[in-house]
Amino acid sequence: MTPADPRERRDRVFGPGMHLSYDRPVHAVSARNVWITEADGTKLLDAYNNVPHVGHGRPEVVRAIAAQAALLNTNTRYLVDGVAEYAERLISLLPEPLDTMFFANSGSEANDLAWRIARTVTGHDGAIVTANAYHGATDLTMATSPEGLAETGAALPAWVATIAIPGELDQPSISSALHRLGQSGHEPAFLAIDTVLSSDGIFDPGPALSPLADQIRAAGGLFIADEVQAGFGRIGETLWGFAESAVVPDIVTFGKPMGNGHPLAAVVTRRDVAERFSERGYYFSTFAGNPVSAAAGMAVLDVMAAEALPRRAEKVGGYLRAAIRHIDHPAVGEVRGRGQFTGVEIRGEEAGAAAHRIVNAMREHGVLIGATGPQQNVLKIRPPLVFTEEHADILTAALRKVLTDL
Amino acid sequence: MTPADPRERRDRVFGPGMHLSYDRPVHAVSARNVWITEADGTKLLDAYNNVPHVGHGRPEVVRAIAAQAALLNTNTRYLVDGVAEYAERLISLLPEPLDTMFFANSGSEANDLAWRIARTVTGHDGAIVTANAYHGATDLTMATSPEGLAETGAALPAWVATIAIPGELDQPSISSALHRLGQSGHEPAFLAIDTVLSSDGIFDPGPALSPLADQIRAAGGLFIADEVQAGFGRIGETLWGFAESAVVPDIVTFGKPMGNGHPLAAVVTRRDVAERFSERGYYFSTFAGNPVSAAAGMAVLDVMAAEALPRRAEKVGGYLRAAIRHIDHPAVGEVRGRGQFTGVEIRGEEAGAAAHRIVNAMREHGVLIGATGPQQNVLKIRPPLVFTEEHADILTAALRKVLTDL
Repeated sequence: MTPADPRERRDRVFGPGMHLSYDRPVHAVSARNVWITEADGTKLLDAYNNVPHVGHGRPEVVRAIAAQAALLNTNTRYLVDGVAEYAERLISLLPEPLDTMFFANSGSEANDLAWRIARTVTGHDGAIVTANAYHGATDLTMATSPEGLAETGAALPAWVATIAIPGELDQPSISSALHRLGQSGHEPAFLAIDTVLSSDGIFDPGPALSPLADQIRAAGGLFIADEVQAGFGRIGETLWGFAESAVVPDIVTFGKPMGNGHPLAAVVTRRDVAERFSERGYYFSTFAGNPVSAAAGMAVLDVMAAEALPRRAEKVGGYLRAAIRHIDHPAVGEVRGRGQFTGVEIRGEEAGAAAHRIVNAMREHGVLIGATGPQQNVLKIRPPLVFTEEHADILTAALRKVLTDL
Repeated sequence: MTPADPRERRDRVFGPGMHLSYDRPVHAVSARNVWITEADGTKLLDAYNNVPHVGHGRPEVVRAIAAQAALLNTNTRYLVDGVAEYAERLISLLPEPLDTMFFANSGSEANDLAWRIARTVTGHDGAIVTANAYHGATDLTMATSPEGLAETGAALPAWVATIAIPGELDQPSISSALHRLGQSGHEPAFLAIDTVLSSDGIFDPGPALSPLADQIRAAGGLFIADEVQAGFGRIGETLWGFAESAVVPDIVTFGKPMGNGHPLAAVVTRRDVAERFSERGYYFSTFAGNPVSAAAGMAVLDVMAAEALPRRAEKVGGYLRAAIRHIDHPAVGEVRGRGQFTGVEIRGEEAGAAAHRIVNAMREHGVLIGATGPQQNVLKIRPPLVFTEEHADILTAALRKVLTDL
């Protein structure tokens, strides 16, 4: 017998580790553009989900998926023009010499492969990540995700060392992390950075990436830019989080917004790195690089370009941050971020609990946001790129009301 | 400038490790039911791909994907009825007490999570797999994939021991593997078996799984059935490769055919195992369990049931094996398999090279098959389940011709 309550029904089939967002979970039945509709008809403004990059249910993407699924869906063992065409298009948006692509099905798979490539090519096994990083749910990527490990109190393995954020951005240094790796007998294979530093509390790394890349290379490791969160114009017209530093990463990984919800992810690297990996490592994925995923990805890039969404992300994101900074409330600390990725620091005692109350009150006022950072005290605002000033005004008005009632 | 040759174009964007099938690769432009059409108009009978389970471009699945993608595509942090409904449906097809599901995006991710669950729950780190197993492309699953490691001559790690196939099926035993694990200081977390033993040369494990499961449990490990290849009725009306043994696995993993090409995979286990995992391990995937994947999976199950495809797989698969056994040729050895998964052993000197020639000649005769096994000398015939006797006749006629010309 099926329980009538949707939460009870879900809990009956999922394990206890599958958390729901919000104290009163969202019961979603449909979504369009930046609005999610609940079973009772309530419309929620989605200021949280970066996956529906060009909008929920975006017709151009839906049509591309439907047409390609009807025409041909196969794998990379066969020649399919649209798949190569998408790879060419993505590579054309990256700086030289990043010219070789591996498809994957999720950001986790992309990072897992990137870590494998770095370890295989360098012959080292150590990793350096930020102190509250999250890089994925596979065994290897979870081991480099202090935020994920903290969920159950699991320890970071000895081959992973961390750099403090924002501490080690001002005087960019991995020397302490290198020292700790060395003490535990590991040499560094890579330094990986989510270029919007999302789970570390949302920071703009500014020019710090370039000296960090120099240091990891000097130590014999590769510099990996994790663009799963920042990429595809979220941070603005430069498209990629690493682009504002004068650095070309050795490996870049992509995920979340890439297929507007269709499982699509990728790794791009230099040809010499790919060649050295392939001599000693094997990778093939049945689903990755299927023509339907590629068609979804292409439609996303087409809409992004046609509507200049990266520029809009900068403009509306800047407008939103300015509006939030105008809210005069003692709990509101630094308002930071880039493009359409905004962090609002909540300060005071038990700031994490306060942020939790704010996030849930916002949901009751019809606006979906989240909280992040090591203390979970940074409001995370990361809407689809089709978000407008009008939507920003709705969010700001709700936040003002929620803070007043706090 | 884009090269006109599709292979040159592909090689320009992909690394050298991305192998193509067949000496003259397939240049696919469309596919329907069991037929793939090439750019020059050639129609190829697809007797290889198990991913388009209910047929290439299957309208019911395409419609389900298109409708759900237009309506709602989000993640498991929200309540979405169709997602829970699909989980209930899959669980209803499995024996008790398998009642708790984790969604994933690929068989690799599903196995990676299953391995993590087993290690976390048992507190052991060792693994036992078959001698030429292939379980996935993540770091952890590749480490347990002797077939994948052999591609580059990489060594099996010390925490993995193997059992010989078919050797250790007759007198089912993992004692030698346990001994080797113990000697290298590892205790077993799990024994994982692809229940159709595909990359080991396609064997029916018969009643062997049950004593193997008893032995791994006695050693403190879990028994994992990898149904990524065998599952969803491919081997017949019992639906799952493990079902013909009197054994209920501790964990079952699913992938390839589950979404008819849409990236969809899963892990199902007992509630007590899921609970113990969640106390010490964290798992969430942005894409996994999205409503579109669930809709694709549901449409696959609907078509399977409506057309009794598992029964057809048994019937047509049996018909095909009988027809191939009638081909009188010295190179044809044992013809084996279950349901719509057939292995044809090629014997004689340089049987692997002969199988390679046969596979390529079949492609030139318009029929796609593959080769597998430790010596790559077993023809692998694994068509969509909508394959009919008429299609089997076309395959058998082509094989007869190819063998005559060998």
